[in-house]
Amino acid sequence: MNNSRDGIRPGQILRRVPDGSIEFSHDELTREEPLEIRIGRKLVATTMRTPGHDEELAVGFLLTEGIIGSSGAIETIDRPNEPEAAGNVVRIVLKRGEKAALSAGQRLGTITSSCGLCGRRNIDAVRQAFPPIRGAGRLPIDVLLGLPDSLRREQGDFARTGGIHAAGLFDFEGRSIVVREDIGRHNAVDKAIGRAALNGKLPLEETILMVSGRASFEIMQKALAAGIPIIASVSAPSTLAMEFARESGQTLVGFLRPPTFNIYSHVERIILPE
Amino acid sequence: MNNSRDGIRPGQILRRVPDGSIEFSHDELTREEPLEIRIGRKLVATTMRTPGHDEELAVGFLLTEGIIGSSGAIETIDRPNEPEAAGNVVRIVLKRGEKAALSAGQRLGTITSSCGLCGRRNIDAVRQAFPPIRGAGRLPIDVLLGLPDSLRREQGDFARTGGIHAAGLFDFEGRSIVVREDIGRHNAVDKAIGRAALNGKLPLEETILMVSGRASFEIMQKALAAGIPIIASVSAPSTLAMEFARESGQTLVGFLRPPTFNIYSHVERIILPE
Repeated sequence: MNNSRDGIRPGQILRRVPDGSIEFSHDELTREEPLEIRIGRKLVATTMRTPGHDEELAVGFLLTEGIIGSSGAIETIDRPNEPEAAGNVVRIVLKRGEKAALSAGQRLGTITSSCGLCGRRNIDAVRQAFPPIRGAGRLPIDVLLGLPDSLRREQGDFARTGGIHAAGLFDFEGRSIVVREDIGRHNAVDKAIGRAALNGKLPLEETILMVSGRASFEIMQKALAAGIPIIASVSAPSTLAMEFARESGQTLVGFLRPPTFNIYSHVERIILPE
Repeated sequence: MNNSRDGIRPGQILRRVPDGSIEFSHDELTREEPLEIRIGRKLVATTMRTPGHDEELAVGFLLTEGIIGSSGAIETIDRPNEPEAAGNVVRIVLKRGEKAALSAGQRLGTITSSCGLCGRRNIDAVRQAFPPIRGAGRLPIDVLLGLPDSLRREQGDFARTGGIHAAGLFDFEGRSIVVREDIGRHNAVDKAIGRAALNGKLPLEETILMVSGRASFEIMQKALAAGIPIIASVSAPSTLAMEFARESGQTLVGFLRPPTFNIYSHVERIILPE
């Protein structure tokens, strides 16, 4: 069909349209590149991410994995000017006297973006690493039902690729605090929490984390680290996410597809009709 | 609403139905548990997976990460009878003289289920670890268009939870070879490839890997390790998946939602209308 080595020119794709005819088109794919996160000279993690908001991703990752206790521990965040790094490194230097809990990070098993947690023993370690959520106000159903639309509205152009996850933080009146996108579910959450942390907003009381994908154990862990009382997902949670939410005081909402949704834990935080 | 600590009894969830009323219901969530994969006494990886087909998962993982070269290297596969393992360990013993390429596994960066590949340098390492796909016959469009239905049909009851990924291997006439499900996309692929390997079917010539989620770089890596020429996904590939497919001779089909689909690489393997 043309002369390129694999039948498709760079930047082009072949598309079958509804009437069955075939046309050449341009791809609009989500970018995926590795990001190295370093503390000083030490490589802490490498994650496959969508470039952008990399500093937030690094800060969010370090916080939600328990590697640093607060953003106040950070002295500087920069991008090393190394030719081979190609923009794919974030370096964080901690203040004098601050220490990275790298052994804790490894104990939590989460040295990569999406492994999350490796080993049942570690689940208890995660629970012990962060305090459970208590109280934190009550959320009207209308606000909950408005979240999927709010998330989509803020996703903007990226949503067209269909290959990106979104995570948004919203207050109990449904106002957006920050929405971030990434090819990795956990990265989107880390970026959103990282932004909030850099703005001095942690712990995130009276806040909802809304994610476009499913709610896994790791999402619950990251939300707990940020003190978020309500986690809402358009898709299914796992059994472990539900068990963890029940133990750690988190309200977990799944299949949030208005007008329907499921609540898996701590329903007392949602204002239901009498 | 009841007297349990979090307002919902174990095994129950609260559901808002389309007319806006609230009812109690039973959860049907996808199970998520850690699995330890050991070679002899050495812990090779721990992955969060849906229990079932664990031996296939372990074998598929070791093969697709390049840790063993073929299933012929395996002497025995068993489940250690340790009280604390709780059915969450698979132990593989290699034949005399066979060695696990654990340094290679670490070089590929894939010691966890879904980190996949960590670091751009490693992308070249993956490409060099497995030979590129050449030739491998041509696939009629009708077969391609039938795959999503075939995959769904074999998913069975699990599909109802909405929180599970499926991966299926199909021949060029559209016949199902094996379909496996898991809460982790990569685990579903490893289980399917592991089953094929245990049946002595690798490399999988004239075979399509169909996945229910998106096609990431790691899925392409695993398919390449098994010699699979065509990878089809109902969702979007990433840029890196596309680049890798072009380099490694793989045909990558995305957004396979009949009657439409996109082809991102090596279109010469698909029989298109004149």
